[in-house]
Amino acid sequence: MLNYSQGTGLLENWLISEMEFSPDTLGKCEAIMYLGNGYMGLRSATEEPYIQEKRNLFVSGTFNKAEENEVTELPNLADITRIDIRVDGEKFSLEIGKTKQYLRQLNLKTAELYRTFYWTSPQGKELKFKFRRFVSLDNLHIIGMKMSIESTSHPVQISFDSGINAQMTNSGSQHFIEGERRIFDKKFIQLIQTTNESNIDMVINTAHDLSINGQLVNANPTMNMGRRKVWLTYDVELKPHDKLEMEKITTVFTSRDKEFDTNEYSLQSLREHSLNVLKESFEIGYDRLFECHKQAWQSKVWSNYDFEINSDNSFDELAIRFSIYHLTVMTPAHDDRMGIGAKALSGEGYKGHSFWDTEIFILPFFVYSNPQIAKSLLTYRYHGLVGARKKAMDNGFKGAMYPWEMAWPSDGEVTPIYGDVDVVTGEQMKIWSGFIEQHISADIAFAVYQYYQVTNDQDFMDNYGYEMVFDTARFWASRLEWDEGKQRYHINNVIGPDEYKEHVNNNAFTNYMAYFNMKLAINYYYILANKNPRLLEELNARINIKEAIQEIHTKVEQIYLPNPRNEDLVIPQDDTYLQLKEIDLTKYKQQESVRTIYKDYNAEQINTIQVTKQADTLLLFYLLEQTFLHDDNRFQDKVKRANFHYYEPRTLHDSSLSLATHAILANDIGEHDLAYSLFKEACEIDLGPNMNTSDDGVHAAAIGGVWKAAVFGFAGVRQIDGELHINPNLPKHWHSMKFTIHWHGQPVTLFITQSTLTVKVSNKQQLSFEVFGKRFKCSDSITLAIK
Amino acid sequence: MLNYSQGTGLLENWLISEMEFSPDTLGKCEAIMYLGNGYMGLRSATEEPYIQEKRNLFVSGTFNKAEENEVTELPNLADITRIDIRVDGEKFSLEIGKTKQYLRQLNLKTAELYRTFYWTSPQGKELKFKFRRFVSLDNLHIIGMKMSIESTSHPVQISFDSGINAQMTNSGSQHFIEGERRIFDKKFIQLIQTTNESNIDMVINTAHDLSINGQLVNANPTMNMGRRKVWLTYDVELKPHDKLEMEKITTVFTSRDKEFDTNEYSLQSLREHSLNVLKESFEIGYDRLFECHKQAWQSKVWSNYDFEINSDNSFDELAIRFSIYHLTVMTPAHDDRMGIGAKALSGEGYKGHSFWDTEIFILPFFVYSNPQIAKSLLTYRYHGLVGARKKAMDNGFKGAMYPWEMAWPSDGEVTPIYGDVDVVTGEQMKIWSGFIEQHISADIAFAVYQYYQVTNDQDFMDNYGYEMVFDTARFWASRLEWDEGKQRYHINNVIGPDEYKEHVNNNAFTNYMAYFNMKLAINYYYILANKNPRLLEELNARINIKEAIQEIHTKVEQIYLPNPRNEDLVIPQDDTYLQLKEIDLTKYKQQESVRTIYKDYNAEQINTIQVTKQADTLLLFYLLEQTFLHDDNRFQDKVKRANFHYYEPRTLHDSSLSLATHAILANDIGEHDLAYSLFKEACEIDLGPNMNTSDDGVHAAAIGGVWKAAVFGFAGVRQIDGELHINPNLPKHWHSMKFTIHWHGQPVTLFITQSTLTVKVSNKQQLSFEVFGKRFKCSDSITLAIK
Repeated sequence: MLNYSQGTGLLENWLISEMEFSPDTLGKCEAIMYLGNGYMGLRSATEEPYIQEKRNLFVSGTFNKAEENEVTELPNLADITRIDIRVDGEKFSLEIGKTKQYLRQLNLKTAELYRTFYWTSPQGKELKFKFRRFVSLDNLHIIGMKMSIESTSHPVQISFDSGINAQMTNSGSQHFIEGERRIFDKKFIQLIQTTNESNIDMVINTAHDLSINGQLVNANPTMNMGRRKVWLTYDVELKPHDKLEMEKITTVFTSRDKEFDTNEYSLQSLREHSLNVLKESFEIGYDRLFECHKQAWQSKVWSNYDFEINSDNSFDELAIRFSIYHLTVMTPAHDDRMGIGAKALSGEGYKGHSFWDTEIFILPFFVYSNPQIAKSLLTYRYHGLVGARKKAMDNGFKGAMYPWEMAWPSDGEVTPIYGDVDVVTGEQMKIWSGFIEQHISADIAFAVYQYYQVTNDQDFMDNYGYEMVFDTARFWASRLEWDEGKQRYHINNVIGPDEYKEHVNNNAFTNYMAYFNMKLAINYYYILANKNPRLLEELNARINIKEAIQEIHTKVEQIYLPNPRNEDLVIPQDDTYLQLKEIDLTKYKQQESVRTIYKDYNAEQINTIQVTKQADTLLLFYLLEQTFLHDDNRFQDKVKRANFHYYEPRTLHDSSLSLATHAILANDIGEHDLAYSLFKEACEIDLGPNMNTSDDGVHAAAIGGVWKAAVFGFAGVRQIDGELHINPNLPKHWHSMKFTIHWHGQPVTLFITQSTLTVKVSNKQQLSFEVFGKRFKCSDSITLAIK
Repeated sequence: MLNYSQGTGLLENWLISEMEFSPDTLGKCEAIMYLGNGYMGLRSATEEPYIQEKRNLFVSGTFNKAEENEVTELPNLADITRIDIRVDGEKFSLEIGKTKQYLRQLNLKTAELYRTFYWTSPQGKELKFKFRRFVSLDNLHIIGMKMSIESTSHPVQISFDSGINAQMTNSGSQHFIEGERRIFDKKFIQLIQTTNESNIDMVINTAHDLSINGQLVNANPTMNMGRRKVWLTYDVELKPHDKLEMEKITTVFTSRDKEFDTNEYSLQSLREHSLNVLKESFEIGYDRLFECHKQAWQSKVWSNYDFEINSDNSFDELAIRFSIYHLTVMTPAHDDRMGIGAKALSGEGYKGHSFWDTEIFILPFFVYSNPQIAKSLLTYRYHGLVGARKKAMDNGFKGAMYPWEMAWPSDGEVTPIYGDVDVVTGEQMKIWSGFIEQHISADIAFAVYQYYQVTNDQDFMDNYGYEMVFDTARFWASRLEWDEGKQRYHINNVIGPDEYKEHVNNNAFTNYMAYFNMKLAINYYYILANKNPRLLEELNARINIKEAIQEIHTKVEQIYLPNPRNEDLVIPQDDTYLQLKEIDLTKYKQQESVRTIYKDYNAEQINTIQVTKQADTLLLFYLLEQTFLHDDNRFQDKVKRANFHYYEPRTLHDSSLSLATHAILANDIGEHDLAYSLFKEACEIDLGPNMNTSDDGVHAAAIGGVWKAAVFGFAGVRQIDGELHINPNLPKHWHSMKFTIHWHGQPVTLFITQSTLTVKVSNKQQLSFEVFGKRFKCSDSITLAIK
């Protein structure tokens, strides 16, 4: 069971703690306590091995396709965390002997993993164990580990195997060709592995230092090599109260690292460089390396993103910090050729692929908190135009059709084709998203628009943004299907955000977002024609936008956009949804785990029921309200309310992307208690009591959603067509919240209580914003009464 | 700890038992109790998983090279043995709770694995478990498993996951492309996997039946699929004293199976056929399938090979039966395109490759006990001429240069190039055997000769044997190097049987065996020229033997054959051995585990010491004595004795091939107690108290050696240039031994006591044989006094 109240004083709401070892639910802490720095992610498996463990080390962007009939994915690198410890020759494991005062803790502030306990061996010898571990934010290539074993009672013989183990796979798929293994000076271990398709070299170096009672000892280890493995065996005798300490410093480098991914690359120089870094780091030692790492977290993360919530439920503040921690460790801020995986870098789930999760659920945090990183993430999508154009062409369309799942930018579509079992046929289900879940292209256009509106980053637009918007609009124009009967353009045979409805026609979300995307392109076109005709010429030379804009222009107003029904203002999710049969969903709504409906129905059957996996039509309100379409009648409050009440009961939130949007909308329509309870549920996707939800990795979008629900929901921050709106509505349990956003390049700190809003700008530029319909200006600090 | 005395009455000396569960030394019983039928081998991992386990399922001949820089090996198929059992929702494992009356047993007579124990869950509920398992010798494609769980005290909820798991690898190397998974009728599970280089399809089907107290129950399992996995989850409630029984029947088929390896092959037909066989077998059920299997063991194995030893140490008889059991399960008697792996089908060690182990250590059992199978094994080598010729050509030689390690016959050399760590440099050691351990070609020629002499199988010789002998002789003729100074042909830069000496010149074993091989070719040539000139013409058309025989003739008598030294009659193992420094080997001789010398010296250093890994020069005596060279002066008794006394103390027996040969020779020279103790040591290679020796698999050659030591050693059976010699010398602990050999097509049963030898022929053909130098004839039964 997890505990969130172990932190006191300066550590209050900073500690995620596990108070009892649970060998059957290891996945939870492995994932939610995983360590990373955007360059790499290290799943927090325990040093000693257990049957149910998943050991993972992923390096961003190192995609590889293990086999012809698989899709590319982030490969699981060699493991350096496992240590096989023997006490008087017998295996150490918490499943045997007796354990007391067990504690495993992730310190969100210092990004250190800590574990300690007393363990009495089956022979009755008591030992005190401590383990510490970090993945450096100061030097992205370094992993530090420290272990201490103290004999509290008897003389004892401790031996352990530790090294580098490249027998790891991705659930059985082996991405690596076995490379050379080497031990230098009986101390520095090096292992090389090379991906078998993308041909990326990984060089892992590691070294150990042992001391007893603070004195370095030369333990003279035995050297061992096995297939894909190299390790040292250490053997030490401890007298009662002796304390053995072991430091293990590891470096990870790959030939995909920006500085090595050049024409001059040679494996030899990568080996030498990485070994030198190891030797230097090893010389510095765990404590000082950790100090630099801690300072990096302070300066790069917490002094920028610090977020205070004074709530009756202190969990709320911890949940936001948990989000910010994870948003930091998941994001490859160092390299704009790389994106964020749907399970971050914490597990094999979704293979490290980027989905719309990034643009709609994660990017907003960076747009408002660290626009530089937001730009890097959007630039990744810009690089992805190569793959998106390939996909469009393969499908007979024009422009850029973004892949539903994206890996290396030039890859194009990488969604797997088959998934889990079909309960009716016993066959593997076909995954249609890669073929027909097409709204992603408009979602990315929306993200460009949002980024631009919040940051005013004209440079980004000139270099990347316009081209992305134009080329996605070109795609949509070519994608529309003329319906002769209705005299409208339809978008048939798609999957909307609600993946429980496959092969639908005119999914409202898709049609409206395509409409937005095309309108946006037209707007940008005329702005450019006016203000930067030279750029327009350049773009035209590349993507023939002048001709395309005519087609976009002609078609956009003829797109079929489903209206709210007269009788109840409900916008039909698609052409048939409102006519489908309704069943009692209570059973599935109440279940702790998600997707339980699949136990009773297969995809084909679910397709015939009014049941929605996740926010679909409702998401549209939240997105388009922020745009130049915000005053469209179809998005009035009463329509929003009607649709919320219609779709919420039919939505199972079987996607972790769903709850945060519903929380924001509930807040918008004045359902504050519901909003708060949806927010809590969203926080509990990873932090809740269900111990299996995070086995395949944390839920990156849900983590972004938690921040969104707090900022866009309770703080009421919203960009609306370039204007900053702040309409706070704190949950009744919250006394205050304080955080900083970046608006048009300027940090703006908001302090909100139940009755006041204080806005403080940092660099004295005038800020204009609206609060509950009233416009304010400020170039210093202003406090307003809000109730 | 292992126990060999659990069998009483009819089961006396038939049971290998483990009396206590030992999670840290699982490899021992997994390997020595592995099940198989020559078609496949199933390592006996327990149903519930443990960290140290190795789950292996190999199908003979399905070689694959997972990656360009690996060598081909037998891939580890999907696992069907693991069952994840939960008791009241908590994992069942013998590492937790309390276990009593634990027993795991391999019944050698019925080839069934059996496991039973009482287990009390951490919650205090006691359950009685029984597991049974066999790999059918009746239908080679069937694996049967049975599990029973009885609640002895409380109501209890049992659930378990069972299916097919293709996440298995060979220590991290994945050989298979993920294939389709399917569940038919919520019952019949099918998984397909295809090797990624050799393109062999494997189709595995499995199905479960559950009953409670003998009544079939429809447990309505949940269907699950994961990556490379498909399984069912069963959930049952037991009342006190309820007994749950589960049968799991599995079929394994591959596209390499002879009946499918045709031009008409289609995966679809393999799938259908295999599923049909599963359905039929499943209908028949465990008990009746097992009955057929048991009968097959009786009729094919024990009624043919039964071997009785009446010894004060009943272990001796059990050890022989253990040998015969393993010789049966390791041997692909069904398909002459396949050979025997050095670790049989019991582990990943040596990758399923065939070494000289087969011809020199294993084949003799079949030559004397089941010539049909011996023929199949030699035919495998005949097919291997393709690869052997390729190797010769690649190395600039003529004829057939057999690979040191052989896999699929056409592959040629498949010895890996790098091995374990070099303790001095920290690099991986280069494995030289594939390049320069060349005696294998002569060993195979010897095996052909031996087979022919014992069986008189002219048909084999005409179709295969002559060609093998001629073409290996051609190789040797081209391999010899003229030494201008000595005016002799030398064989430089080789490894002899003693692999602790690399790059030596004129290894006595190699030179003498090459000499024998060439002389044999000359003999056969003139016999053929005389008796079957048409065949000679045919062979000449294929391998140009007429021209080659001239060269062989010219060179053979000029080969340098090291003579016994004048002073002590020692034949130098190679040109430098006798001049190397001597060190105190006591430390390494006393160690329980082998190759401990590597902890102190690397290969280069060991090369400079008078230390021998395994019988080398001594083996030569044993082999050439059986040939037309038996009366060569250089193999006189006194020379043999001198060499034994010189080399035995210098031999670490660090190869499991070594002891049996020394046991035979010790017996030959009258060192009967030593012979017996070497025999015991040989038996203990797999059956001894060292719990780690069999981790990578059983020692196939040592297992063959145990039989050899008994028959050629104690019973004194020897073929000498076509004559049967029987010079028994039972160990003083043995009262009698009885077994049957096949001589010139006729079964001959020998009954030997301390003072008598009874020879009984089955089919009344006259048998001529020699006992201690006296010739006898018999066409019925004869008893002779021998002391």
